[in-house]
Amino acid sequence: MSRISVWGFRWAPDFAQGLVRDLRVRWALIEAGRSYEVQLIGFEERTAAPYRQRQPFGMVPAFEADGLQLFESGAIVHHIASDCAALMPADASARAEVLTWMFAALNTVEPPIQNLLETDLLYGNEPWAAMRRPVVVDAVKARLGVLAGHLQGRDHLLGSFTAADILMTTTLRLARHAELVAGFPVLDAYVKRCEARPAFRAALAEQMADYARNTPIAA
Amino acid sequence: MSRISVWGFRWAPDFAQGLVRDLRVRWALIEAGRSYEVQLIGFEERTAAPYRQRQPFGMVPAFEADGLQLFESGAIVHHIASDCAALMPADASARAEVLTWMFAALNTVEPPIQNLLETDLLYGNEPWAAMRRPVVVDAVKARLGVLAGHLQGRDHLLGSFTAADILMTTTLRLARHAELVAGFPVLDAYVKRCEARPAFRAALAEQMADYARNTPIAA
Ligand SMILES: N[C@@H](CCC(=O)N[C@@H](CS)C(=O)NCC(=O)O)C(=O)O
Ligand SMILES: N[C@@H](CCC(=O)N[C@@H](CS)C(=O)NCC(=O)O)C(=O)O
Repeated sequence: MSRISVWGFRWAPDFAQGLVRDLRVRWALIEAGRSYEVQLIGFEERTAAPYRQRQPFGMVPAFEADGLQLFESGAIVHHIASDCAALMPADASARAEVLTWMFAALNTVEPPIQNLLETDLLYGNEPWAAMRRPVVVDAVKARLGVLAGHLQGRDHLLGSFTAADILMTTTLRLARHAELVAGFPVLDAYVKRCEARPAFRAALAEQMADYARNTPIAA
Repeated sequence: MSRISVWGFRWAPDFAQGLVRDLRVRWALIEAGRSYEVQLIGFEERTAAPYRQRQPFGMVPAFEADGLQLFESGAIVHHIASDCAALMPADASARAEVLTWMFAALNTVEPPIQNLLETDLLYGNEPWAAMRRPVVVDAVKARLGVLAGHLQGRDHLLGSFTAADILMTTTLRLARHAELVAGFPVLDAYVKRCEARPAFRAALAEQMADYARNTPIAA
């Protein structure tokens, strides 16, 4: 991979800053020691034809490296990691275990957390939001409890830091407004451990700097 | 992979028969020409210690091949496909594109569909379910519309049938009770095309036969 581009939003409202999913890709690239360019788009551009040709669902992130166009944060992080021993071991069985935890993050832990985020932050004024919330919170807590059990006595999901920790940490961050992770000390320590990595801090600082530079006058 | 086991439920209620996610793994294994054993567990066993050691979240499927234990249907199907040219090309860039559509199925299309399934079939009697339903239906339709656009003029998500089609087809089936896919003729034809494959039919027949054999007397 020589020339790499990552697409993200030019700006995001406060509740989303530090959560937008190009953060995952930036973090992986910095861990892997790759340089890259960030292409920032306006929120309205996401559903216009040129961007849809990169990301049919009109979401960020999108990715291009030497003519290969990818989307889906999980697939992009996997692609970056597959060339990088620090993010994914070379052995096929070990790789399958990393992918297991990548899908666990995005297909088992993220959906209930995303539901909570939407219930509270997008639909908070709908009459059904408060009525439904207990069911959503219980679903999140059930998944967090299992994850805390798995991480008990471990620093990372697998034997060392991998691409799966990038996806899991950024997934757990999606619940930050509800402060549920703090109720599981093992998880709280895990998230802080991963967030303390220089590559995470650099990726987050970059995303926040892009938003600061592009804050609309009205915001 | 010489000796392969797949874990599924011994029985499932009508609304879930043909949707339970071990179907994805059976389908992939049959496409790949692998023989395997199915280990059926009772619903109550899923959260007991022995099974949790295979699948920490207490869900099916789980998978074992030659001592390698995996879970997450996405990761298991990817592992099977990575040894099988009929499910995934050998070239690294083409593989990254397959994984892109695998994550699109499980992280972009499945969450709203799973929400609809839960709203209608698990929480249908809750007062908030009917109030929230229009938002959920709109989210599903938005994703289906994009997918139909992508599949226009194509037989499969990528140039030929791949592991991504296994995940996308089984994801779209999760909305069968709501008959939303039928509103998108391109998608309807896509699902029928994939379901017409002998390997899908064999996998579905196997799952249904297991449930028929193990129907509880009270059901
Ligand atoms: N499954 C996708 C989800 C991407 C996603 O949800 N992106 C959000 C920002 S974090 C977005 O672009 N939202 C705009 C929209 O949904 O219209 C991925 O992981 O790449
Ligand atoms: N992300 C998981 C989800 C698995 C899943 O939802 N399995 C369902 C059956 S289709 C299950 O075991 N449900 C039981 C439960 O949630 O307690 C995967 O794809 O393997």
